[in-house]
Amino acid sequence: MDEGRYLAADRYFALHHAAGLEELVRFLAIPSISALPEHAPDVVRAARFLADRLRQVGCPAVELLDPGGYPVVYGAWPGAAGAPTALVYGHYDVQPVDPPEAWYHDPFAPVVADGKLYARGASDDKGQLWMHLEAAQALAAAAGRLPVNLKFLFEGEEETGASHLAGFAAAHRELLAADVLVISDTSFFAPGVPSVSCGLRGLAAWELVVHGSARDLHSGEFGGAVANPLHSLAELLASLHDGEGRVAVAGFYDGVAPPDPGVRAELAGLPFEEDAFRRLTGAEPWGEVGYTTLERLWLRPTLEVNGLGGGFQGTGIKTVLPTSARAKLTARLVPGQDPARVLAVVEDHLRRRCPPGVRLELRPGGGSPAVHTPADSPWVRAARRALERAFERPAVLIRSGGSIPVVAALRETLGTAPVLLGFGLPDDAIHAPDERLDLEQYARGQRAIVAYWLELGAVRGSGVEKAR
Amino acid sequence: MDEGRYLAADRYFALHHAAGLEELVRFLAIPSISALPEHAPDVVRAARFLADRLRQVGCPAVELLDPGGYPVVYGAWPGAAGAPTALVYGHYDVQPVDPPEAWYHDPFAPVVADGKLYARGASDDKGQLWMHLEAAQALAAAAGRLPVNLKFLFEGEEETGASHLAGFAAAHRELLAADVLVISDTSFFAPGVPSVSCGLRGLAAWELVVHGSARDLHSGEFGGAVANPLHSLAELLASLHDGEGRVAVAGFYDGVAPPDPGVRAELAGLPFEEDAFRRLTGAEPWGEVGYTTLERLWLRPTLEVNGLGGGFQGTGIKTVLPTSARAKLTARLVPGQDPARVLAVVEDHLRRRCPPGVRLELRPGGGSPAVHTPADSPWVRAARRALERAFERPAVLIRSGGSIPVVAALRETLGTAPVLLGFGLPDDAIHAPDERLDLEQYARGQRAIVAYWLELGAVRGSGVEKAR
Repeated sequence: MDEGRYLAADRYFALHHAAGLEELVRFLAIPSISALPEHAPDVVRAARFLADRLRQVGCPAVELLDPGGYPVVYGAWPGAAGAPTALVYGHYDVQPVDPPEAWYHDPFAPVVADGKLYARGASDDKGQLWMHLEAAQALAAAAGRLPVNLKFLFEGEEETGASHLAGFAAAHRELLAADVLVISDTSFFAPGVPSVSCGLRGLAAWELVVHGSARDLHSGEFGGAVANPLHSLAELLASLHDGEGRVAVAGFYDGVAPPDPGVRAELAGLPFEEDAFRRLTGAEPWGEVGYTTLERLWLRPTLEVNGLGGGFQGTGIKTVLPTSARAKLTARLVPGQDPARVLAVVEDHLRRRCPPGVRLELRPGGGSPAVHTPADSPWVRAARRALERAFERPAVLIRSGGSIPVVAALRETLGTAPVLLGFGLPDDAIHAPDERLDLEQYARGQRAIVAYWLELGAVRGSGVEKAR
Repeated sequence: MDEGRYLAADRYFALHHAAGLEELVRFLAIPSISALPEHAPDVVRAARFLADRLRQVGCPAVELLDPGGYPVVYGAWPGAAGAPTALVYGHYDVQPVDPPEAWYHDPFAPVVADGKLYARGASDDKGQLWMHLEAAQALAAAAGRLPVNLKFLFEGEEETGASHLAGFAAAHRELLAADVLVISDTSFFAPGVPSVSCGLRGLAAWELVVHGSARDLHSGEFGGAVANPLHSLAELLASLHDGEGRVAVAGFYDGVAPPDPGVRAELAGLPFEEDAFRRLTGAEPWGEVGYTTLERLWLRPTLEVNGLGGGFQGTGIKTVLPTSARAKLTARLVPGQDPARVLAVVEDHLRRRCPPGVRLELRPGGGSPAVHTPADSPWVRAARRALERAFERPAVLIRSGGSIPVVAALRETLGTAPVLLGFGLPDDAIHAPDERLDLEQYARGQRAIVAYWLELGAVRGSGVEKAR
């Protein structure tokens, strides 16, 4: 790595930190909640803001493209002919904020407190994609040009579970052609433990509605003589697991290999503390019998209810037999599981187990497979070195329990090796109230990105930077 | 019965129908939803309105009394020394209206359409208690005085499940002393089938919250490694019933006798049509194996979930493991079941069955026993005759699946035999959207009350009319 250029960028950051952060605050203030239709104008506004900023930091070719939903912000920034091309993926949309009353800080009035920047999207993923803009600007300003060729791909539908990006990628293979796909949308294993993730779980989703009587009925006048959809829903959902945390759906585990002893040993060697986990979650570790917490998170699939509701949920009592009850489910998948098959076996289970007297309405959502990148890939090895330079500590190789469905789709469509270079911390509270980004992670993360591009500048590229 | 006085009252009704209905519309327009704290002023306003109306129709002594919650509207109207005294119970509070979007008619802008008066409370119970005011006014106006002694007792906490009336009655035994307790808060068995009800199911209630992690967690980052309260809730609720509609809580059925063959035959003789039940509910009859629909409703206890909720319930997907999940339960009890014991065995079951990794918070509500009045009581026999006169058809003896906890309490405290003289119809949609009152039931019901007081005028009273 060219240490001189690294130090030049480092000085640039020191001088320009405040200005970039101020713009990030404006970006975070836009409530770009893609799952809620009423926020559609905000999502589009966030896309325009991001495109403007990308131009501002020096990207010579920025476009808003239409993938069939919210805009894709695309930017091409060639730096060095013959050097590798990196496709940098991020998303500018954010999760809903409910329950809003649980936030101490206003989710869309970003504020810095105790060295952290609080806002919805601060860590997932507006704050992280922002580091790439800052890093590119610093490298270009400090060294005249980029040591690699960059293509930025920022979407606005990651949090909807129904992104159009896979189709978009299939239709724009040349535009997106790259040697490595870099995603900064994950977390360090722990504070002070720089981490590159080589795996993500996949995802499958369902919504279900159990319909009973044609209208709400009085539970005194009719109770006992018609099926109660709330009971049926509880019975259906309870049938999804056995008493030992295993998914009780026939075929769910098809294709899942027992964990490799080497991998189990590697996981056992990570600095994982159950006490820290307890403090972080406020919960006792609990899950599938026979596995450690990290194995449950990284090597085992899950089937989770994310929401359910029906009948009277207000204050007091309402003696009602409601007309329907509903639930939302998602599964996290591991290598070997075929999302289409998981969608099918869960649907089959739910239909077969639906109790008498009610009707099941099932809406399967999308599915995406798990992703896994070899630990000895040059792109992963360079990432470890870059992290060690910027964070001044050894970097570990981890996996992620979460899913970024588009990573699976991009890998499949473009054939590009993904590297998950995430700068979040486990207690960033993503998808939860008071989401935040640690500002030291923010500062060192930008430098790690600079180091990564400098590391990759020494690798021979495939020439795809010219593809359009 | 004094037919001349009956016909005089009948003529009075014919002349004064519109004026009384107009005032009822004003009464129904007050959203006296006792379960929702934000409607507290409306509940009090409804009490004042009712007290004013009671004075208006001629009741000489009307008071607003404080039972420790919403006011009791009390009126004493002596009519005939030596004749029986009837305590007329009703409630001026109403159920919540959710889901509001399911109403075609505005719940608090009463309107007449197709011979029915649409409004929350039209049948349960503002419209029914109103008939008593109209009947007393007609009798007094047409005949100079009442043939019996009336005491009106209208409360505002019936729909909360936490009425203070039992304590109030215990503290006011003399004030409320009567020969018969008349409640008009139930329904005819079917349109055209005048009915006196001799039984009500009892009630017990619980609210439960299942607590998991200290905050909402991302279901990718943490899924599989902490208990999901939504799963735990589903498992708990599913454990309450077996696959054949029976309650699976040990001790729940203690004290419940197998149905008497004579009672089963009597129920089988009622003009019950499964097709009409299907049309009414929009559901297939379904329930405890081995019992008919009427047996399930009147002779068997139930344990029902009335509401549940947790996690993300909005549009789209939110991959969350929520911090908690909650549910509301009620049981309907039959003779032989002790509410305190039912509360205890269900609590015990829930605590024992609470899955690992979560904490159960359980709030038991009140309980009240089932009520049953002998069919050959003089008060019941007079009621059948009165119904037959006003509705010009034979009257049947039925039971009710619902509960009026205060009836059990009043019976126990005052020792007064209750008679359930309800004028609703099964499709009045009480506790549901578009609640209504059939206006023929309203007109004939007033006449049946007149006939009942005239019938009772011939019975010797116990002199409690002077009690105070």
